[in-house]
Amino acid sequence: MNSFVQYAGPELATINELLLAEVERLDPVVQPLVRYVLEAGGKRLRPFLVLLTARAFGHTGEGAYPLACAMEFLHSATLLHDDIVDGADLRRDQATAHTLFGHTRTILAGDILLALANRLVADYDIPRLNGAMAEGIYRTAAGEILEISHLRNPGLGLGEYLDIVTGKTACLMAAACRCGALLAGAGDALVERAAGFGLNLGIAFQLVDDALDYSSCRAVAGKPVGADLREGKLTLPLILYFESLDAARRARLGEGFRNASLGGEEMDAIVAEVNELGLDRKTRDVAREYLDRAAEDLAAFPESRETAVLRDTLEFLHRREK
Amino acid sequence: MNSFVQYAGPELATINELLLAEVERLDPVVQPLVRYVLEAGGKRLRPFLVLLTARAFGHTGEGAYPLACAMEFLHSATLLHDDIVDGADLRRDQATAHTLFGHTRTILAGDILLALANRLVADYDIPRLNGAMAEGIYRTAAGEILEISHLRNPGLGLGEYLDIVTGKTACLMAAACRCGALLAGAGDALVERAAGFGLNLGIAFQLVDDALDYSSCRAVAGKPVGADLREGKLTLPLILYFESLDAARRARLGEGFRNASLGGEEMDAIVAEVNELGLDRKTRDVAREYLDRAAEDLAAFPESRETAVLRDTLEFLHRREK
Repeated sequence: MNSFVQYAGPELATINELLLAEVERLDPVVQPLVRYVLEAGGKRLRPFLVLLTARAFGHTGEGAYPLACAMEFLHSATLLHDDIVDGADLRRDQATAHTLFGHTRTILAGDILLALANRLVADYDIPRLNGAMAEGIYRTAAGEILEISHLRNPGLGLGEYLDIVTGKTACLMAAACRCGALLAGAGDALVERAAGFGLNLGIAFQLVDDALDYSSCRAVAGKPVGADLREGKLTLPLILYFESLDAARRARLGEGFRNASLGGEEMDAIVAEVNELGLDRKTRDVAREYLDRAAEDLAAFPESRETAVLRDTLEFLHRREK
Repeated sequence: MNSFVQYAGPELATINELLLAEVERLDPVVQPLVRYVLEAGGKRLRPFLVLLTARAFGHTGEGAYPLACAMEFLHSATLLHDDIVDGADLRRDQATAHTLFGHTRTILAGDILLALANRLVADYDIPRLNGAMAEGIYRTAAGEILEISHLRNPGLGLGEYLDIVTGKTACLMAAACRCGALLAGAGDALVERAAGFGLNLGIAFQLVDDALDYSSCRAVAGKPVGADLREGKLTLPLILYFESLDAARRARLGEGFRNASLGGEEMDAIVAEVNELGLDRKTRDVAREYLDRAAEDLAAFPESRETAVLRDTLEFLHRREK
């Protein structure tokens, strides 16, 4: 069994208990919604990154748990708002919160979770934690905005795509690792290594996610295959696909993508072609490059059980099928 | 001329300049929306509270401006999300942002402004500022949720109403004054006085707002008279009105309020009766009690030009007609 899973198993119960204990203090009007989101699954990757990084740098005791919870609440808050923004009906094969609870409660639940995360971090009274958190929140929101601003833009380049991925996903993971290292009192150079590890891991994580969106069967991914294409998001598999076409076809499909005028069968055909051309695998190859960079950052960590688990986590993320 | 207006005049240009300079660093996709909200007016009361409190406690120089801007961004963020939540079409006689820019951009703009506010505060590297800010954000979101949870509840009592008012409006003003005092390095007792001043002023501010919702003519208030009644918000004038009715009529109108089944003419008649009974004035009388408490807190401030301006501000808020 993968050491990440082995390590995570016993921790998961603690984290979930603490998350739900915080939720019980919220107003009853948002509790069912927040519980729904938290119980919809999720790997609790961000809390684990906080715990593992803090412990890798010598932090002991229970003190890292509120910080770990803060990162999960922050992540949940972004999911709630993003699902409205994306008009997504499904996440992990379940109806998204806003389709069940409406926009009003979903917006408010996102706001209160963000506020709760802020408060949990502020309670540490460590200025640099607040700074790292504020930067993480800011860049996550900016990444989401960047993605929306390029919606249905068939001319999106690799650099801009990576900016979006970095903002919307990787910066929060970087913040999780940075905060873990700061909490443990690691020196500046190691804090930067920890943040770099989280950033590169986060980019790889999103790249694999974007590959899965094309390659995975719906039952495994918990959402429809090709959802990104349907939502007008140009991710790496589709960027590579457009690059593989001759100019005339690229222009025609690009226009269809821009105008949201591609038919259902046409989109199914594109998804099939992306797979036939192995572009999901190529996307995973790019993810591999970022995992290698993450491994380089990890090499600067002191050796420990947690450092070994983080190393295994990189493999786990690369191979994941959901 | 009121000394608040006299003092605020020259400061207003500086604050607006700094606010717009921050906005220019945001992604172009949210800039027009954020600029629209900032330029829609607003009294910049929260930034002024930061500046005035900081200076009243001896802070000099330009250092308080980013904190002042943070409070305005936070306020703008809550307006953006609340207008969606309330389904409000107008604010200050202008179309609300979400009716012009859609839910997606409005949610994202609110999120980025909240994040920006956090970052501006985190940059001070003063843990207690982050704590005060986090608490202010949390209680504001919780207050808004409490209001929604009591929407169309004709049995809402005065205590719960004041909890809502305190949460959704006063806590942020308390945070503004607390932060100003903290920045100036005031002692703990004075910081609490500053926060108490902001809290009581904020409760009074909202009470006057709720009175204006019934009494002001549309052209002055910048929004339709009786909007709270139409949106299903039970505020003090309506609480007092329900209390003035005999049991049978109270039950009938209460049911109509609960079921949103009151007709337009019926609601116009209620608004007219609230005015005839002087319940808007009675609401202002309750506001006066909180202004008196704010004045007591203010008596603990060292005497200065700013303390005098804050004293005049209390009068200004009590008399305001828009």
